[in-house]
Amino acid sequence: MPEDMGGAHPVDSVISAARKLLGERISTNRNIREQHAHGEDTQPHVLPDAVAFVENSEEVARLLGLCHSAGVPVTAFGAGTSLEGHVTPVLSGITLDLSRMRRVLEVNAADMDCFVEAGVTRQQLNAHLRDQGLFFPVDPGSECTIGGMCATRASGTNAVRYGTIRDNVLGLTVALADGRLIRTGGRVRKSSTGYDLTRLFIGSEGTLGVITEIGLRLHGIPEAIVSAACQFPMLSGAVETVVSVMQAGIPVARIELLDEVQMRASIAYSNLPGLAEIPTLFFEFHGTPVAVAEQVRVTEEIARDCGAERFTQAADAEARAHLWKARHDAYWAALALQPGCRILTADAIVPISRLTEAVLASREAITASGLTGAILGHVGDGNFHTVIIVPSEPDGLARAWALDRTIVGIALGLGGSCSGEHGVGIGKRQFLEAEHGQEALAVMRAIKSALDPRGILNPGKIFPDQTNPGVIAVA
Amino acid sequence: MPEDMGGAHPVDSVISAARKLLGERISTNRNIREQHAHGEDTQPHVLPDAVAFVENSEEVARLLGLCHSAGVPVTAFGAGTSLEGHVTPVLSGITLDLSRMRRVLEVNAADMDCFVEAGVTRQQLNAHLRDQGLFFPVDPGSECTIGGMCATRASGTNAVRYGTIRDNVLGLTVALADGRLIRTGGRVRKSSTGYDLTRLFIGSEGTLGVITEIGLRLHGIPEAIVSAACQFPMLSGAVETVVSVMQAGIPVARIELLDEVQMRASIAYSNLPGLAEIPTLFFEFHGTPVAVAEQVRVTEEIARDCGAERFTQAADAEARAHLWKARHDAYWAALALQPGCRILTADAIVPISRLTEAVLASREAITASGLTGAILGHVGDGNFHTVIIVPSEPDGLARAWALDRTIVGIALGLGGSCSGEHGVGIGKRQFLEAEHGQEALAVMRAIKSALDPRGILNPGKIFPDQTNPGVIAVA
Repeated sequence: MPEDMGGAHPVDSVISAARKLLGERISTNRNIREQHAHGEDTQPHVLPDAVAFVENSEEVARLLGLCHSAGVPVTAFGAGTSLEGHVTPVLSGITLDLSRMRRVLEVNAADMDCFVEAGVTRQQLNAHLRDQGLFFPVDPGSECTIGGMCATRASGTNAVRYGTIRDNVLGLTVALADGRLIRTGGRVRKSSTGYDLTRLFIGSEGTLGVITEIGLRLHGIPEAIVSAACQFPMLSGAVETVVSVMQAGIPVARIELLDEVQMRASIAYSNLPGLAEIPTLFFEFHGTPVAVAEQVRVTEEIARDCGAERFTQAADAEARAHLWKARHDAYWAALALQPGCRILTADAIVPISRLTEAVLASREAITASGLTGAILGHVGDGNFHTVIIVPSEPDGLARAWALDRTIVGIALGLGGSCSGEHGVGIGKRQFLEAEHGQEALAVMRAIKSALDPRGILNPGKIFPDQTNPGVIAVA
Repeated sequence: MPEDMGGAHPVDSVISAARKLLGERISTNRNIREQHAHGEDTQPHVLPDAVAFVENSEEVARLLGLCHSAGVPVTAFGAGTSLEGHVTPVLSGITLDLSRMRRVLEVNAADMDCFVEAGVTRQQLNAHLRDQGLFFPVDPGSECTIGGMCATRASGTNAVRYGTIRDNVLGLTVALADGRLIRTGGRVRKSSTGYDLTRLFIGSEGTLGVITEIGLRLHGIPEAIVSAACQFPMLSGAVETVVSVMQAGIPVARIELLDEVQMRASIAYSNLPGLAEIPTLFFEFHGTPVAVAEQVRVTEEIARDCGAERFTQAADAEARAHLWKARHDAYWAALALQPGCRILTADAIVPISRLTEAVLASREAITASGLTGAILGHVGDGNFHTVIIVPSEPDGLARAWALDRTIVGIALGLGGSCSGEHGVGIGKRQFLEAEHGQEALAVMRAIKSALDPRGILNPGKIFPDQTNPGVIAVA
């Protein structure tokens, strides 16, 4: 709880000061606070005391300066699509809504880079770039902001070829806890000067600073794009195909797995003619027509060797779009399996050689739990998700979480990580020590203390303590 | 200077304690200390008080613990190939020589990864991997250690396609200043859990911890490899070709520029039949035979459009090896232009759209300086080097450094960085504030203080202060 300053609650003094800066753009309206009390997760909601709709880096910095002086917690909020409770202001305070920071500041076609404000979404950016023959490849599927993607170290379906957000950021503008603004990185493709602050802030989930502007690498829109769907009688055949395709060095742009439960859901929801309710891989290939044709041919050979029953390709834009819309609608398709229920999306990643074991063990865990769950994922990286239907009974959420924990345990036991791309937030904090070890976690804490000594930045996230007790300065 | 502990110099007490641990493997022999007083740079030599030949992570950690307690500086040393004075122990103390840590600990062919000790060289690793059809692509040209490459955030000729060391490390074992050992990252291809400590230690030049083991991503040896040399009457045509090839999205593995001075040196030194003393690009293409043939065809078209006079390809291994040996011998070839002189290798990088300006302005600066200098570099990234012959006159080195500063100034003025891949060490410290700004540098200092509060780790590097005064605890 914030400190007492001569009767007035410190958050009230911050709100008053912020009002002079932002006018009507700081709100204590209950509806607005409720919209900022959660992401797309299953954590308990917590209302911020106020929501500030900031419009530029300097405003973010000035608000942080105010909150730092008063010891008031600050949580950054983009599109609210995070899945592990990242945007829930567990100690209330001020939520900075960056969704109005939607300017594409600069596109340098010759250098294939651009600079955007944190509230720009990837769809908006790609629409902006289309005429220049360029695109931004990182695609988590949701209508998320680039700032949020940086904060959670997001990736998605294209990461197997183009890398994650980590690999596609040139530099950042970051507002620090005490209101200083820094720039990290620059316009060059690589540099070996000084500590890699860019990568330090990427994935720090708003606990070390608030990312306000981002420099991004762009890529040329490929001359040819071909999609394919490939079906297997056994899950193991699908996973073996993925492993072999990666080992053969085929530069596939996407390889997505949908297991039989997800296929049942997606066929019902999205209409996928010609496809059966069996484990399926969706592929996408990028390149010149010659190179793509060769990639498709070799991939089909590998898939047939691994027992594939069907391998159907789609080169025209409409058929491709339909296939990938079905993939991106997987969440809604799964939800439609039991209407009225919520979804918990588990995220885990393993070395690719352990993917078959991980997916089969997760499937067994779903069966043993008695819950309905579908497995899908960005399997070219070893990253898989389990879409768990949360039963509407009172203990439904607890059972879903128990299954999530079991699946994470499977992944960690196979040398994996508790999150490939959704981040830690609140939901994965309990696994951090098991995954990184106590000493590495101590180093992370030392960095947190050095950069945010009063602990105002997104308290209660990443670190295992319930609400980072003692970190927030109660003066 | 180390603190006084009851008469005995603290470094002497560290040496005594280390002798119990290492026996003859800690040496105060003057020849050995002289070998560890410098890298391949032009900085003044400084002798360490002793050199410890460590053999595993635990020994590194125990020695750091001893030095931390006594406030004695520690400098890590691999192959001694660094170019900016990184390994010079400017405050003396203990040098940890990791070159005996040469075990390849683990190769996982299915996951295309491996784990090595810090003293493994990339040549050693690639020889080890060859039978498995795998290779490690990061190639700075010298016989450097993987640990040193991590410490300096190295890259080299293949970075344009395969990324720098930053992109190819899965995780690290690091001994911290106070003797704790941590592991960062893991075996997975991506993760979004916790701060990216791996990337924080990469490029930290031994100032935040000593890297003792490394997990690396590997790549499949391509089915087909073709090299090409392409010559231009004008430097600008060569650079324009690079820009166009990158924009066309051709996945070239290497694009190296050698200007007319370097070509004159290399033709004399390496015998390059059929090539003239004019600006030249060396290319390498990796992929399937079909894909490579297409890459070569499109690249030749682009080069011809940019005014290329010759475009000759080499597919057989011997001809390719000869071409790339000539490239890697560029340093020796330049040295042979004025026998008996030393070389100062300048390193700078700019956004690729500014590469023509940067290279032409650097060429003018060389002419204006009256020195002999050749320009070459990994131009697919915008990274270029100037090999400056240091005249043997008394002010020769000062003149060479002045030219180096001018070239860095050109790069910074074009939105570049003062080092693409050689790092900061001692030589580039003066540019850090201009490149990153005072506030970002303050964040780097805060991290340094948090992780190395007594300032024992490689003092005098990265940060602009002459010898980090006041950082070493003099108690």
